[in-house]
Amino acid sequence: MEFTVRQIAAFLGGEVIGDHDLKINNVSKIEEGKPGTLSFLANPKYESFIYETKSSAVLVNRDFKPSHQIQATLIKVPDAYKALAQLMDMYVQSIPVKKGIEIPSFISTTANIGTDVYVGAFSYIADGVKIGNNVQIHPQCWIGRDSVIADNTIIFAGVKIYPDTRIGKNCIVHAGAVIGSDGFGFAQQEDGTYKKLHQIGNVVIEDDVEIGANSTIDCATMGSTIIHKGVKIDNLVQIAHNVEVGENTVMAAQVGVAGSSTVGKNCQLAGKVGIAGHLKVGNNVTCTAKTGVTSNVSDGKTVMGFYGIDASRYRRINAVFRNLPELFYEVNQLKKEIKNIKAE
Amino acid sequence: MEFTVRQIAAFLGGEVIGDHDLKINNVSKIEEGKPGTLSFLANPKYESFIYETKSSAVLVNRDFKPSHQIQATLIKVPDAYKALAQLMDMYVQSIPVKKGIEIPSFISTTANIGTDVYVGAFSYIADGVKIGNNVQIHPQCWIGRDSVIADNTIIFAGVKIYPDTRIGKNCIVHAGAVIGSDGFGFAQQEDGTYKKLHQIGNVVIEDDVEIGANSTIDCATMGSTIIHKGVKIDNLVQIAHNVEVGENTVMAAQVGVAGSSTVGKNCQLAGKVGIAGHLKVGNNVTCTAKTGVTSNVSDGKTVMGFYGIDASRYRRINAVFRNLPELFYEVNQLKKEIKNIKAE
Amino acid sequence: MEFTVRQIAAFLGGEVIGDHDLKINNVSKIEEGKPGTLSFLANPKYESFIYETKSSAVLVNRDFKPSHQIQATLIKVPDAYKALAQLMDMYVQSIPVKKGIEIPSFISTTANIGTDVYVGAFSYIADGVKIGNNVQIHPQCWIGRDSVIADNTIIFAGVKIYPDTRIGKNCIVHAGAVIGSDGFGFAQQEDGTYKKLHQIGNVVIEDDVEIGANSTIDCATMGSTIIHKGVKIDNLVQIAHNVEVGENTVMAAQVGVAGSSTVGKNCQLAGKVGIAGHLKVGNNVTCTAKTGVTSNVSDGKTVMGFYGIDASRYRRINAVFRNLPELFYEVNQLKKEIKNIKAE
Repeated sequence: MEFTVRQIAAFLGGEVIGDHDLKINNVSKIEEGKPGTLSFLANPKYESFIYETKSSAVLVNRDFKPSHQIQATLIKVPDAYKALAQLMDMYVQSIPVKKGIEIPSFISTTANIGTDVYVGAFSYIADGVKIGNNVQIHPQCWIGRDSVIADNTIIFAGVKIYPDTRIGKNCIVHAGAVIGSDGFGFAQQEDGTYKKLHQIGNVVIEDDVEIGANSTIDCATMGSTIIHKGVKIDNLVQIAHNVEVGENTVMAAQVGVAGSSTVGKNCQLAGKVGIAGHLKVGNNVTCTAKTGVTSNVSDGKTVMGFYGIDASRYRRINAVFRNLPELFYEVNQLKKEIKNIKAE
Repeated sequence: MEFTVRQIAAFLGGEVIGDHDLKINNVSKIEEGKPGTLSFLANPKYESFIYETKSSAVLVNRDFKPSHQIQATLIKVPDAYKALAQLMDMYVQSIPVKKGIEIPSFISTTANIGTDVYVGAFSYIADGVKIGNNVQIHPQCWIGRDSVIADNTIIFAGVKIYPDTRIGKNCIVHAGAVIGSDGFGFAQQEDGTYKKLHQIGNVVIEDDVEIGANSTIDCATMGSTIIHKGVKIDNLVQIAHNVEVGENTVMAAQVGVAGSSTVGKNCQLAGKVGIAGHLKVGNNVTCTAKTGVTSNVSDGKTVMGFYGIDASRYRRINAVFRNLPELFYEVNQLKKEIKNIKAE
Repeated sequence: MEFTVRQIAAFLGGEVIGDHDLKINNVSKIEEGKPGTLSFLANPKYESFIYETKSSAVLVNRDFKPSHQIQATLIKVPDAYKALAQLMDMYVQSIPVKKGIEIPSFISTTANIGTDVYVGAFSYIADGVKIGNNVQIHPQCWIGRDSVIADNTIIFAGVKIYPDTRIGKNCIVHAGAVIGSDGFGFAQQEDGTYKKLHQIGNVVIEDDVEIGANSTIDCATMGSTIIHKGVKIDNLVQIAHNVEVGENTVMAAQVGVAGSSTVGKNCQLAGKVGIAGHLKVGNNVTCTAKTGVTSNVSDGKTVMGFYGIDASRYRRINAVFRNLPELFYEVNQLKKEIKNIKAE
């Protein structure tokens, strides 16, 4: 795939400063630029790289004013970062999408498959499953009994979906994710053993959700574990039974949400955050990395810390924490001084 | 599947207050009740919902006395929660269990398969494997050479079991779990590189164990990593080489136990707990969520904190921790006061 | 497989004290020794076991001097631990390696497969893939379009490799690992929804790398996520987009490295360590278990703590932290004393 700078600028509605006929065959980071590639400069922090980059061309914001000479051809656009995203979209859309049923695969005669669907080899579509149009199910997936996958959704290789799961439109589920496994529910008996509480609920995933590689989402004990529209979940995340995650909430890798908790809309949970069970986390909440949430969080709060508390409070605590040896020393000094005063 | 309230009450030995002929086709949480469903009320905290629920019928404890009028039909039983669990058991048992070998699958001619076994399509049963009676192996599993899986155990889709693993009776292994992968053992060489220590042990899982989705249990360097009878392990849990976990211990999601540690019987490890290597955690130990265990823990202790210590001690520490800014302020006040006293 | 003590001693160049003709058919830990097995004693901490072990023979360091009588036959070698590793190598090498293409598998006509390769049943080799010589690809793997796997590498069952991944020689990837899944990149829109940033980079894994079960390594947004030569990664580890990990660095289970961070050479990251995004961790850095790294770390440092700081400093802080109740008490005592002094 090769384009000229002229073609790219025309596609993006940009202005070229330099050679219109340069050929571009890939993109690269500005600090790792190579001839034949296109880079971008959006964050002024990286400006110094534009004077040294080996990239043939660089996308820059329209208002960018170089302070030194630049070898690379520039393409000026209203927003260099957005323009790059547009190009990457174009690139991805140019990759041919697989269609059709590969052999061998296992498709129940009672499954209902839409048009223009891809089912990769070694995938298993169980009884009563409904697959919408333009769905891609890559190899080695298991779609359990009576599950529904709506239009345009992409299920990458090796995803396992338990019976009765509902997945909306335009979702992406990455390789190895498990959806609908049993909630972790047991009743302790008098002899100390545990009796399994059968989990008869399911998982409902609404439209536009992305779920990362090897993440796990348990079914509800009764009713549904619900991932609302537009939620983005990274790799190795655990969502327990009966959890509900609000629209457009994002969760970074290795987050865990325990049973029956609800997380509101537009929240941001950074890496390794843990939310204990039966809690209510409000809308627009931010949890910084590794925060342990052990009580309800109201709308708009930022929480942090091993036992998560309000971030501004935590920062004040942490400032003293980091100086505990000095505080300890001071208290001992005061002790001595008081002893001296009393001895006088 | 549909039952009348009369049938359900008869099955549970309960007493009906209301319409015996109502038809029930599902269960629901009392706060999300819908017509045609059965809910339950065990925890008095949820009592208010029973006066508003749209569920057709509600299981209640025999001694429940409503304080307002209730629309729903009641089924009175000795223990509403246990009755619900019984119903869920009945429901799960009513789902037909698959039997037989689906095609295509790969079954070594030297494997030994019991009666009434299910082997899902695309599963791989290697040389010398022994599968007991009534075992279910769902699609896309890999059962490595010489492994043994005893009667009634269920292996969900995509589970990977390395050679020479032993799994007991009545176990459940959820999708994507990996059992018997190499322990993480390397010997650093003088040039800084690492030489692999080959791991020639195995994993032994006793009866009645449940293992969550995408969890990993490494084989022993020598000997066996052992998961004793009745242990329940949630999703995304890591059990390292040569670990031993005692009977009826439960581990919530994202727990990690490092190499050669032993965890006693009847312990409860909450989510994200980490146990360092070569430690001994006693019986009946509780670790609250995210606890980092870095030293041995004696029987019956509850530990908590980033570097786990006795919980009652930790709570006292944490109470001061949360007020560190005020402590800091007070020390500074004392400093000033002493200065003043000395200046007098 | 059975050897005499004589044969083992000859192989290791060791000296036999006891019965040369004893038959050995397995190895065991000295504290769990059984007749017919060989144990080893390297760490003097375990010396007491040698006087009670039921193992038939024990490997000991040449300079070992028993203080009591020993039942077992001894094999004296220069370094008992290394000798054991040699034996385990020999044992592993004695297991026959599978070769050939099992049926059914899916191999694109445009894939290029080397000599003496094993492709397990239900594995999927996509268009343009290149597989080197002596590579083992166990069952149910997915090797995405245009990926390259170099000589002698072992890919265990169910590994999923996204398109365009590069994996070097002599690597081991354990079951369920996912390599090349999309980086977690989204641009928030004005209405709160997130637009996916397509991830068009790849993952490059150099020679001699081992990757644990169910670990996930995301592709770069642009360019490559790079795992350099000799890196060892344990189970359930997350490596985000555009991360670079230096030579011979080891990462224990459940570590997470966020996007665009670099970790230097010869580092040791213990279990559950988290590294925030866009950071630079130097060479020879140690992070103790559960450390949260939120700022750059310079060469040779050891960091620890919830918000990782220099270990020696952290230990001093932690010593005061653990005595906060007493510090609090002392401050209150001082307050009282000052009050008394002022009242005088």
